[in-house]
Amino acid sequence: MRTDGREASELRPVHIESGYLMHPEGSVLISVGNTKVICTASVEDRVPPFLRGSGKGWIAAEYSMLPRATQQRNIRESSKGKVSGRTMEIQRLIGRALRAAVDLDQLGEKTIWVDCDVIQADGGTRTASVTGAFVAVAEAIANIHKSKPFATFPIQHLLAATSVGIIPEEGIVLDLNYEEDSKALVDMNVVMTSAGEFVELQGTGEGATFTPAQLNGLLAAAQTGLEELFEKQKEILGDLLPLIGQ
Amino acid sequence: MRTDGREASELRPVHIESGYLMHPEGSVLISVGNTKVICTASVEDRVPPFLRGSGKGWIAAEYSMLPRATQQRNIRESSKGKVSGRTMEIQRLIGRALRAAVDLDQLGEKTIWVDCDVIQADGGTRTASVTGAFVAVAEAIANIHKSKPFATFPIQHLLAATSVGIIPEEGIVLDLNYEEDSKALVDMNVVMTSAGEFVELQGTGEGATFTPAQLNGLLAAAQTGLEELFEKQKEILGDLLPLIGQ
Amino acid sequence: MRTDGREASELRPVHIESGYLMHPEGSVLISVGNTKVICTASVEDRVPPFLRGSGKGWIAAEYSMLPRATQQRNIRESSKGKVSGRTMEIQRLIGRALRAAVDLDQLGEKTIWVDCDVIQADGGTRTASVTGAFVAVAEAIANIHKSKPFATFPIQHLLAATSVGIIPEEGIVLDLNYEEDSKALVDMNVVMTSAGEFVELQGTGEGATFTPAQLNGLLAAAQTGLEELFEKQKEILGDLLPLIGQ
Amino acid sequence: MRTDGREASELRPVHIESGYLMHPEGSVLISVGNTKVICTASVEDRVPPFLRGSGKGWIAAEYSMLPRATQQRNIRESSKGKVSGRTMEIQRLIGRALRAAVDLDQLGEKTIWVDCDVIQADGGTRTASVTGAFVAVAEAIANIHKSKPFATFPIQHLLAATSVGIIPEEGIVLDLNYEEDSKALVDMNVVMTSAGEFVELQGTGEGATFTPAQLNGLLAAAQTGLEELFEKQKEILGDLLPLIGQ
Amino acid sequence: MRTDGREASELRPVHIESGYLMHPEGSVLISVGNTKVICTASVEDRVPPFLRGSGKGWIAAEYSMLPRATQQRNIRESSKGKVSGRTMEIQRLIGRALRAAVDLDQLGEKTIWVDCDVIQADGGTRTASVTGAFVAVAEAIANIHKSKPFATFPIQHLLAATSVGIIPEEGIVLDLNYEEDSKALVDMNVVMTSAGEFVELQGTGEGATFTPAQLNGLLAAAQTGLEELFEKQKEILGDLLPLIGQ
Amino acid sequence: MRTDGREASELRPVHIESGYLMHPEGSVLISVGNTKVICTASVEDRVPPFLRGSGKGWIAAEYSMLPRATQQRNIRESSKGKVSGRTMEIQRLIGRALRAAVDLDQLGEKTIWVDCDVIQADGGTRTASVTGAFVAVAEAIANIHKSKPFATFPIQHLLAATSVGIIPEEGIVLDLNYEEDSKALVDMNVVMTSAGEFVELQGTGEGATFTPAQLNGLLAAAQTGLEELFEKQKEILGDLLPLIGQ
Repeated sequence: MRTDGREASELRPVHIESGYLMHPEGSVLISVGNTKVICTASVEDRVPPFLRGSGKGWIAAEYSMLPRATQQRNIRESSKGKVSGRTMEIQRLIGRALRAAVDLDQLGEKTIWVDCDVIQADGGTRTASVTGAFVAVAEAIANIHKSKPFATFPIQHLLAATSVGIIPEEGIVLDLNYEEDSKALVDMNVVMTSAGEFVELQGTGEGATFTPAQLNGLLAAAQTGLEELFEKQKEILGDLLPLIGQ
Repeated sequence: MRTDGREASELRPVHIESGYLMHPEGSVLISVGNTKVICTASVEDRVPPFLRGSGKGWIAAEYSMLPRATQQRNIRESSKGKVSGRTMEIQRLIGRALRAAVDLDQLGEKTIWVDCDVIQADGGTRTASVTGAFVAVAEAIANIHKSKPFATFPIQHLLAATSVGIIPEEGIVLDLNYEEDSKALVDMNVVMTSAGEFVELQGTGEGATFTPAQLNGLLAAAQTGLEELFEKQKEILGDLLPLIGQ
Repeated sequence: MRTDGREASELRPVHIESGYLMHPEGSVLISVGNTKVICTASVEDRVPPFLRGSGKGWIAAEYSMLPRATQQRNIRESSKGKVSGRTMEIQRLIGRALRAAVDLDQLGEKTIWVDCDVIQADGGTRTASVTGAFVAVAEAIANIHKSKPFATFPIQHLLAATSVGIIPEEGIVLDLNYEEDSKALVDMNVVMTSAGEFVELQGTGEGATFTPAQLNGLLAAAQTGLEELFEKQKEILGDLLPLIGQ
Repeated sequence: MRTDGREASELRPVHIESGYLMHPEGSVLISVGNTKVICTASVEDRVPPFLRGSGKGWIAAEYSMLPRATQQRNIRESSKGKVSGRTMEIQRLIGRALRAAVDLDQLGEKTIWVDCDVIQADGGTRTASVTGAFVAVAEAIANIHKSKPFATFPIQHLLAATSVGIIPEEGIVLDLNYEEDSKALVDMNVVMTSAGEFVELQGTGEGATFTPAQLNGLLAAAQTGLEELFEKQKEILGDLLPLIGQ
Repeated sequence: MRTDGREASELRPVHIESGYLMHPEGSVLISVGNTKVICTASVEDRVPPFLRGSGKGWIAAEYSMLPRATQQRNIRESSKGKVSGRTMEIQRLIGRALRAAVDLDQLGEKTIWVDCDVIQADGGTRTASVTGAFVAVAEAIANIHKSKPFATFPIQHLLAATSVGIIPEEGIVLDLNYEEDSKALVDMNVVMTSAGEFVELQGTGEGATFTPAQLNGLLAAAQTGLEELFEKQKEILGDLLPLIGQ
Repeated sequence: MRTDGREASELRPVHIESGYLMHPEGSVLISVGNTKVICTASVEDRVPPFLRGSGKGWIAAEYSMLPRATQQRNIRESSKGKVSGRTMEIQRLIGRALRAAVDLDQLGEKTIWVDCDVIQADGGTRTASVTGAFVAVAEAIANIHKSKPFATFPIQHLLAATSVGIIPEEGIVLDLNYEEDSKALVDMNVVMTSAGEFVELQGTGEGATFTPAQLNGLLAAAQTGLEELFEKQKEILGDLLPLIGQ
């Protein structure tokens, strides 16, 4: 039994509130246990220079935490005048994951800006960001579709992410909270589509290593969690599911 | 009648939710109409260098907007690598206002970090920040008081802020929303204590000027709004009011 | 009697030297007591992006202090790599004040860059900057007018600024020097036109508050000082006064 | 057959020159095909603040490319005034990988700074950096050991990294050069110890996804390459191998 | 005859006003023709880390131009967030020159901060800065000497600087103004002591080269100008000359 | 005899390896004793804004050191977020020197980016950079010439640089290594063409001064070294010499 009473392969409670803010084309508040992230999707009618004239769209992601999202207050990156390596790494991951989930040729020359702002952190903020941002992006694309329908809707599968890890006494666990994450020997983030294919796999031994057998166990645990996340996304996406072919 | 149907001296609906986040010593979500701000107060057991050994405390404030708090997405200040003049001006105002509301000698050598993060903006974000942050700071100080009571509680009055302005067809109005703010000829922010004294007064002709008579009209409208804000704060502060001498 | 022998409502000696530098379209050295500021106005034949094609002009202001303008040497903002909040706040005030004094529609698509560089500081640098910069801007606009006359001269009133405050033993005083400013309970900057209308009013309780009655006393003292400043500006503007309708 | 004539699971020629520079405690020039990286290890007798007094050591890594290491010249990050997200991501990977390969408790309170400077880039610069930096770190630790022997040598396994990917016509390939990397559908970096355990696994679908079966194929190809890299490291480490228990 | 009517080896009129500002330990306004620079010397009772405990002092110099010191307005380096290469080069030159003129062992563990702020530029700002700053530093050191006399006064010679160059029609000229500087083929700055020894010599072919014979001609012209500058410095230093052994 | 056994006017061994890297249009590895610098020349088909439409070309130089090029590891300038004054000074010197050696009118509207990256430092890095960069630039221009011949080849003389100095016991010496440089009383860099004309002369008394007689001795020593460097350049340039008119 884990310190918060969960089974090894049990997710924390997940809630997704869509249409959370008035201005963005798509916006959700996602909570995974005590981790809470506001994810917004903003549509811009132009693309970065390297795509101009290509007919293709782009998705760019930014990630940040409120200073007191964490136990100790963090100095704002705007005050420090630079974005940390951790933030860069996370926002690059979110952007890559979403670009893999959307057919950018179908999207056309538009940029979707994804902003994931963590208002409360208790582990798993990057995977909650991917899972929530996917819903915000789907809403934003559906909004474009309403005024000017796509020949083929640019999303054809769901996309979600979760973390798995190995912790000293429990072994392989799903969806680590902050306390578990702090003592994990191995930490792995898995981003997958609802078609069961990997989009991103990042496994790291934190001062430790892991065997091919352990890799298989980690992937199996992730699979369990991702299926539950896809169900949550289906509930919240509702009317959009036929567009996505689900 | 104003475009949103309000009377000239009518505030928008105000809601304050306290204890909004799990980590900070004080935290609220304040909404004033569609403007929504998360205000947190974080206690640190040390003070800036110029106060070390003085026995006095300090309050420092930071203000930010989520990129899509506004109609158009704004570039993050962390990406730009610097904080804008507008942000600087606002966070200096919030800090000064709260320092005037708290007896820093009674507080002792502690710093309270106030973070105001606007998640949705529709005018009046700086005054909503002051009004909400006061509640968060009061909660944080009450939390210190619980574990180690103050001889005299460092807060003895409430503090709130509102905006007033002159708009082309309506004349003097209270609590401008974004649309009204955009066309205002004169814009004034008033920060006051529940004892009826000014803490800060900032009036600006936006390409226009205002007469001493108009100044009096603006201050009267502000007074009306501030009294209502103090009532809201009293509701939410509840058990803390006797400590504050209210 | 104040420590420098002045009455409560007495300005320090004010001198304005116009045509101070060879390159700028307008330039003055203003001294208010020991406070000395070089104010220049530079005309540029284009406007910021948001005004292009609008037919309107713009005024932008920058403020700085030489490192040893003060008792203790300050680190240059260019060395720190960023502009402080105080500087931002001051240069935004100067810009807003001057834009309110000039008819930007009449000016046409030009930008006037105002630079206020404090070479010696003894309190009141921001109000001396506004008062001096107004003269430099008037000179610059008169220079444009000489080569290509305006239908209506874009300035129709004078503009000046002064500070008032409340200090522990003297009460309300006009034009605070540095020593007075350091101990002031309340500090207020008043920017006004020669038509007697406010352009900007910024009053701050420095760890204190002020009553509506005190506000009236402060405004009355400011009025006294501003009238004297308008006289000084008239002396120095000389031939330009008829253009300004004075 | 690949465009450079290699088999699917064939590494490019690998050369490691140790003792490459006169000043660092460890330094190598590693070339993997046309990719060339100078890796240095510098020993400092102190640790970051969070480890002071812990008795533990630390390894920090930095990565950079000469401006003309690439086909098109890149602007220096020192000129841009900030480090890119890509650089951050890579140097964090190198640091984590090496920290997993060294027993930081045995190392004691020392920091090893690893610098990987790419002088010529043709794909696989991050994995070449890990493979080369491991040798430089081993040399640096052996140098410490000479003057003050460790009870247990802090390294007990070799560490190397390689890339695998899926490219349109060839399918799964090992050690992608720049041209292959540009068209890869899936790109995976694998860092492993000579004990056959994973240290880091980063697989990314570049606008594509990959199945669990493809994951197994990629890991098998990586295994082949890593064994060859361990052989190269053994050749170059020579006398140090008994210390490492090889 | 030069465009401003001077002979080839004729300096522009030089004025030095000492005690120019109230706060600094030493301050002058130097004008060389239309070039005007405020030079201040600020004494700090500590030294940079590399000199702590050495008993030796230090002199650090900073140089800047007001935005409208020049014909075209320059963007402030504080707004750009970084100091230009030209500024860096000039302030390093000023610092080195003054450190060579002062016996830092005699000075003891103090830092003298030299600030040279150009308020009007017409060529030769760096050499005017050196010549003026020397006087400000001498004043500052004399001020230290008054309260706590040095065994040996740390300055034993005067220090001045001038520019010489080769311009297309005139050949070798002394003290180039901006117009001459713009068309110069060769530009040389010479810093010398009143003992006739070089402190710094910087000669640059601006897209041209110069022969050893031309070098001798340039040095002779510089010598003429420097002797006149030493005379000006002697006038202004007056009572301090015996301390300096002049 | 010097500590490394050289005569006073003896250069350290010089090696220049051309065509060192695969991507740049010109690239060399130059070693002067233990000082090693990679110099590359990159051709870009456009010029800075101030030259557009002028028909003239440009040469821009950047200089950097690997963090462990030196005895003590240096923090990267990209991590510090700014380029040091020393780096700025050096890269401005390299750029000016090369622009004086190339006929920019003949070059046409192209920019040659010169990058000098020091991989091992033992004194004289800036002069080795100039000497090596000249060869890289000559190669790059010869490469342009091959595909599209110039009417007149833009280089007509060789360009090289060396250092001379005065050290306490040896007096005037040529080509100072790091140890000699650290104790030098006078340090001078001389950049010259093979026609025997100066391009740049920078002499600095390091807390000392030098007489006109010593200046002549320093220039004579430099001359000796430069002649040897021109011989080395001729060897390596080989087939290009007739183009350069040598």
